[in-house]
Amino acid sequence: MQEIERKFLVKSDDFKIDAFTYSEIKQGYLNSNPDRAVRIRIKNEEGYLTIKGRSNSSGTTRFEWEKQLSKEEAEALFELCEPGTIIKRRYLVKAGIHTYEVDVFEGENKGLILAEIELNFEDEAFIKPLWLGEEVTGDNRYYNSQLSKNPIKAHSDFN
Amino acid sequence: MQEIERKFLVKSDDFKIDAFTYSEIKQGYLNSNPDRAVRIRIKNEEGYLTIKGRSNSSGTTRFEWEKQLSKEEAEALFELCEPGTIIKRRYLVKAGIHTYEVDVFEGENKGLILAEIELNFEDEAFIKPLWLGEEVTGDNRYYNSQLSKNPIKAHSDFN
Repeated sequence: MQEIERKFLVKSDDFKIDAFTYSEIKQGYLNSNPDRAVRIRIKNEEGYLTIKGRSNSSGTTRFEWEKQLSKEEAEALFELCEPGTIIKRRYLVKAGIHTYEVDVFEGENKGLILAEIELNFEDEAFIKPLWLGEEVTGDNRYYNSQLSKNPIKAHSDFN
Repeated sequence: MQEIERKFLVKSDDFKIDAFTYSEIKQGYLNSNPDRAVRIRIKNEEGYLTIKGRSNSSGTTRFEWEKQLSKEEAEALFELCEPGTIIKRRYLVKAGIHTYEVDVFEGENKGLILAEIELNFEDEAFIKPLWLGEEVTGDNRYYNSQLSKNPIKAHSDFN
């Protein structure tokens, strides 16, 4: 299926006030190439295998396929992944009919916070909370597959 | 799980006399790196997603994980694969308690025939039919993931 998503930096911690839950995520890549990204994720006690294709020119739409795995399967496949593990806590924040996923990165990407919203169609309107910062939709540097290899600390324009 | 396999070149067509069935296979790779190979296979009308790790030093044992897919899922994921499709007809040939899979390659690898036997343990004895040629277990060039990028015609030592 196709996913339509927009992604933003986050400029304050106020999203935590509105968050209704969070989960701990660990993920690695069997392929970090954005043309055919193959991701192994362990979220709380669940495993997932996700395959994503290249996004469209605006960066909003991307093919995505996902299968749930047992935690044991996910742990075994995690062992094969490329170096560079993503560790993050994901907060969920309601905004009208949508839900923002706000990822607070740990480890190599500590300091980075990204918010993502999934839309039903490309031009759908959505609420922008005050804590939302600059849009980075389609900016490859903020793909998790790229953050696993090139942590954001290494970027000269991130303060 | 771990798979224990040995692989051979095939020196005559006589295996076809003993074969009890065959199937048509098309496969591509979401990652052709042998450390974390991610394969999409369409066999007759069935799809499979298979992930394999690096083999041990003797080349006989390799981690392998597989999930069945619908043909539609497999076709969609096939679209994301690296360039280089493997097309082959796989014959099954009984040999005592084992079964040889004999792959007759088409397309870029036309002319190549490989036989593989799966063992229950590393030193298990098995029957070697007269059509079996040189053993190539552990020779990376004969990994299908490598054949997809470097067809065997390009090898100087294959006549």
